[in-house]
Amino acid sequence: MSAESKILVTNDDGIYSAGIFALYNSMKEIGHAYVVAPDYERSAVGHAITISDPLRVLQVEKNGEFFGWAVNGTPADCVKLAAKAILDSKPDLVVSGINQGPNTAINVIYSGTVSAATEGTIMGIPSIAFSLTSFKKSDFSLASFIAKKIAALVLDNGLPPDTLLNVNIPPLPKEEIKGIKIARQGKGRYEEFFEKRIDPMNRTYYWLGGKRLFLDTDEDVDEVAIQNQYVTVTPLQYDLTDYKMLDELKNWDLKF
Amino acid sequence: MSAESKILVTNDDGIYSAGIFALYNSMKEIGHAYVVAPDYERSAVGHAITISDPLRVLQVEKNGEFFGWAVNGTPADCVKLAAKAILDSKPDLVVSGINQGPNTAINVIYSGTVSAATEGTIMGIPSIAFSLTSFKKSDFSLASFIAKKIAALVLDNGLPPDTLLNVNIPPLPKEEIKGIKIARQGKGRYEEFFEKRIDPMNRTYYWLGGKRLFLDTDEDVDEVAIQNQYVTVTPLQYDLTDYKMLDELKNWDLKF
Repeated sequence: MSAESKILVTNDDGIYSAGIFALYNSMKEIGHAYVVAPDYERSAVGHAITISDPLRVLQVEKNGEFFGWAVNGTPADCVKLAAKAILDSKPDLVVSGINQGPNTAINVIYSGTVSAATEGTIMGIPSIAFSLTSFKKSDFSLASFIAKKIAALVLDNGLPPDTLLNVNIPPLPKEEIKGIKIARQGKGRYEEFFEKRIDPMNRTYYWLGGKRLFLDTDEDVDEVAIQNQYVTVTPLQYDLTDYKMLDELKNWDLKF
Repeated sequence: MSAESKILVTNDDGIYSAGIFALYNSMKEIGHAYVVAPDYERSAVGHAITISDPLRVLQVEKNGEFFGWAVNGTPADCVKLAAKAILDSKPDLVVSGINQGPNTAINVIYSGTVSAATEGTIMGIPSIAFSLTSFKKSDFSLASFIAKKIAALVLDNGLPPDTLLNVNIPPLPKEEIKGIKIARQGKGRYEEFFEKRIDPMNRTYYWLGGKRLFLDTDEDVDEVAIQNQYVTVTPLQYDLTDYKMLDELKNWDLKF
């Protein structure tokens, strides 16, 4: 780690969120932090990128000072654009967050926060996603402290190519946190429904709702560890091949 | 397989694309096919879902007959909405495509076509993504034939929970296809750049471009097999945990 490290800070809650401001402030303590983030909330965009529209960049101030660049795109767009067009060289680290709400279990698939870190990894940059596992207005101070600790470790140790870290922090005071657990991604998902409604023009629309299903009990699963008051660190990769199924498929009659 | 099988047909190129019409026609031969697809192209949306906006559904005709439901959402939205609000029960199979362009290597991460099949799998429905590996206006007849063959096999055999199939078909006549290869996801990605342009209002915008990097040589990798004139079938799953890295992380000094 060096005070010269160039750290790209992004998120999916948008450049005006409290979580990215907290993350920026903690990254400034360990290197040069640069904020490039979506101009408004882009939650649940998964790994979307913008290929059919132009991207625009606006400079944003906070408390009278330059804060960062707002992009009319997705978190993955922000990482690409920062590395290729906004910053004068590739950053040494990409940090994404601090997300408001958990990115555990199935949320990892839908998460814009995680996809920004995935994009950094694809570009060969060590990358970390941080989430506070609460949807309520929260205190980011412990999460920022932990983000700084883990970011500094990654700057020192690096990460293997194709590996990113997904960190989830429960919204608890420090003394109630049991520690940090290396955890795997759980299987919990949503039981979803659509509410059918009628708008003032008498046209039908649908709105997605759902309740969370907790499907894991093992202590080393992200969601379970969070409930047990641990901070979780989950290494992720993006080779989606189902290796167990590869051999089985060879027995299928696929000739034509 | 039974002629009563209920097959949901979706895609990311939109309900008006030639590929979904070809897929629909081939699925009609093996079951009841229902089309629920985005109202316009949603390529590269990854696993985006719509949580902050209402979804609307329009009935679409083709050649004077009812064809399907168009949704102002992503491929994953279409699968959720079809299963939960449009169809009267969960489909027996989700097929997504036939995409115009490859969904191999890194494209799998960005692909809306694959994400529709992933969404089906998350909902417990056997699901398959089909892509023709050409961006040019193409003949979908061989791809449709292969889609029918594989869909029928999946209706007969089922798929393990959490596994989907990602099928890529080269744009070649049948006699030039060497066979079907069970392949793993490659590492090929894009070397990207942004073109900086000035609009007629004298404002700057950026447009994403890139050239494909082929980084694999093993014959059992999706991209390589496609180049070698094979149809590829890649089983995918969505536990992104990097299991190799799990143990190594336990040696990091993560106390705080």
